[in-house]
Amino acid sequence: MTQSRYDKGWETLGNINSEAGERILNMLKDISPDMAKLVIEFPYGDIWSRKGLDIKTRELITIASLTTLGFPKDQLKAHTHNALNAGCSKEEIIEVVMQMSVYAGFPAALNAMFVVKEVLESRGLLENS
Amino acid sequence: MTQSRYDKGWETLGNINSEAGERILNMLKDISPDMAKLVIEFPYGDIWSRKGLDIKTRELITIASLTTLGFPKDQLKAHTHNALNAGCSKEEIIEVVMQMSVYAGFPAALNAMFVVKEVLESRGLLENS
Amino acid sequence: MTQSRYDKGWETLGNINSEAGERILNMLKDISPDMAKLVIEFPYGDIWSRKGLDIKTRELITIASLTTLGFPKDQLKAHTHNALNAGCSKEEIIEVVMQMSVYAGFPAALNAMFVVKEVLESRGLLENS
Amino acid sequence: MTQSRYDKGWETLGNINSEAGERILNMLKDISPDMAKLVIEFPYGDIWSRKGLDIKTRELITIASLTTLGFPKDQLKAHTHNALNAGCSKEEIIEVVMQMSVYAGFPAALNAMFVVKEVLESRGLLENS
Amino acid sequence: MTQSRYDKGWETLGNINSEAGERILNMLKDISPDMAKLVIEFPYGDIWSRKGLDIKTRELITIASLTTLGFPKDQLKAHTHNALNAGCSKEEIIEVVMQMSVYAGFPAALNAMFVVKEVLESRGLLENS
Amino acid sequence: MTQSRYDKGWETLGNINSEAGERILNMLKDISPDMAKLVIEFPYGDIWSRKGLDIKTRELITIASLTTLGFPKDQLKAHTHNALNAGCSKEEIIEVVMQMSVYAGFPAALNAMFVVKEVLESRGLLENS
Repeated sequence: MTQSRYDKGWETLGNINSEAGERILNMLKDISPDMAKLVIEFPYGDIWSRKGLDIKTRELITIASLTTLGFPKDQLKAHTHNALNAGCSKEEIIEVVMQMSVYAGFPAALNAMFVVKEVLESRGLLENS
Repeated sequence: MTQSRYDKGWETLGNINSEAGERILNMLKDISPDMAKLVIEFPYGDIWSRKGLDIKTRELITIASLTTLGFPKDQLKAHTHNALNAGCSKEEIIEVVMQMSVYAGFPAALNAMFVVKEVLESRGLLENS
Repeated sequence: MTQSRYDKGWETLGNINSEAGERILNMLKDISPDMAKLVIEFPYGDIWSRKGLDIKTRELITIASLTTLGFPKDQLKAHTHNALNAGCSKEEIIEVVMQMSVYAGFPAALNAMFVVKEVLESRGLLENS
Repeated sequence: MTQSRYDKGWETLGNINSEAGERILNMLKDISPDMAKLVIEFPYGDIWSRKGLDIKTRELITIASLTTLGFPKDQLKAHTHNALNAGCSKEEIIEVVMQMSVYAGFPAALNAMFVVKEVLESRGLLENS
Repeated sequence: MTQSRYDKGWETLGNINSEAGERILNMLKDISPDMAKLVIEFPYGDIWSRKGLDIKTRELITIASLTTLGFPKDQLKAHTHNALNAGCSKEEIIEVVMQMSVYAGFPAALNAMFVVKEVLESRGLLENS
Repeated sequence: MTQSRYDKGWETLGNINSEAGERILNMLKDISPDMAKLVIEFPYGDIWSRKGLDIKTRELITIASLTTLGFPKDQLKAHTHNALNAGCSKEEIIEVVMQMSVYAGFPAALNAMFVVKEVLESRGLLENS
């Protein structure tokens, strides 16, 4: 059954996970395989696999939270990729980040916007990229 | 035109604003009418009136951000009311808060859950309330 | 096996949990039994049940984290009780909070000190209480 | 000389400290006299006694920082009193808090505004108070 | 009139804005011209253009807030340049950052000091730079 | 006696301080020798030199606090070195960081884990490093 949380986690991740997310998980392997297992089991096996919110909405609230925290740029990068993979439009992601200027302030919103920009450019989704 | 941002802000607020939100705005009147005006104009006139995200999604990402910040209990209370007014189900709101345990930690998620609980109880939306 | 994480969580909690902690868990029951289950399973079943750090040290680093976050007063109260139940001395707890003045600033450290004070007084552990 | 840092701290505090600040210091006495001593010695003896910024500016940047942190309401209350004692006008204090809506977001700025309001009312400095 | 908020914003920015600030605004152009417009209109058109605090004080409280947040290094860099452009002395800026060790902790104050150092060095304002 | 706080600070630092910590102190010298002096005197002379907690525990609660803050990567790096110098095992440090996923969220815990990983690799303490 612990195996099954792990499996459920991988299954949930399967459709959305990006290279950026993969990279974060891989970095954990030699320092703490237990932590890598927990990342699959708790966030993905226990939370993201739940019904009640679709994956697109889960990505948008995650982007809202990461923008508010301010410091987690790698996770924001991974979830911007994941959000696009899950079918969020770039306009929706930009809109979420812009709204965070109200709740978390402009420095948080601007820094997040630049991370999103980097992801959009890397996927050829900005007009001049 | 400044009037029109203000009007646009009030119009946006009109459908969703709760007594709890009203109370916050009213509290500003004697200390800083300019701040009260800015709250209508910038968050509501400039941001919430934008297309690109529906009001329900805007409420859910706001709840995600306020849960992450941890301290703004009155605003979370107001936006829980607003989210319900905008058509979010209690299950969706609870799901957003629960997911924040992953990104902002359990203390943030638990404290937000208790604010949401208080709102749901006040509206007779919990079975034992 | 999910049951067993839950059981492991309760077993871990059993020796240290305080009325304050119990109160927090009870408050979740009607709004989100799933969240109550997750609190037992992840923090206690997955993390606190691990070897590698004794419970006293786990309580002290939790108090450090909660002091740093600043806003979670109820959780800090519960963990101050739990820390005392686990065998931490009041002097050790005070020392942790005092050191947080360096890393999280004096407002965080002072607010935490007043929560600790309230707990110590309620247990008759302050000379004038 | 440690005494002299302590004395320097008290001297610095002497002109500005409010009942609200006094209350915070008094609350430390029985739980941690060492912490009470450190509050006088480091913030006031080492920092606030320095040249290079006048006390009014020191109060305004402190109010900016406390507003940004969001959670320390008692300290913000004390420093609003101290700022007024040091000669800051209520307009200046309100202006600082309002500007924090840009950097720390509206929830932080609004919550701080309500603390400032409470202080101004208690001193009869609001028109309808 | 919206134009006029925009113009007022640019006028306010005109005397103080630095290459570092310009760079941040330019980075927004292709991802979100609306966000670029909002940055001029709300922070600069609505807030910084207000009377009641001089620009030097507005820069110092901004530096206090950014130091407290901890993560926004690019914005702190820009505002350190802007503060110097507005007539703040390097000693005043250093003093603000140092005082933040009391309210936001030493890690926040030290990290901000290193950003300020980088700016001062780039302008030849440190003796060994 | 101020000299003696400074000396006490250096003595406390002597057994544990790492090149990473030294580098931080050195960076302060030209921008603010007073700040460098305060770092020795307050955190180390006043706090870390106290009895009541051993140095290993002081390092672990510092790592908990820095992980929770999220942004101070250089300080976390320095204290990971210091913790190892003070006799903490890599397993203990990893366990502290992992537990922070509960209180500060996974982004904070993951980012801290990657800083710890970098330190362990630089000391040849990871199997594949």
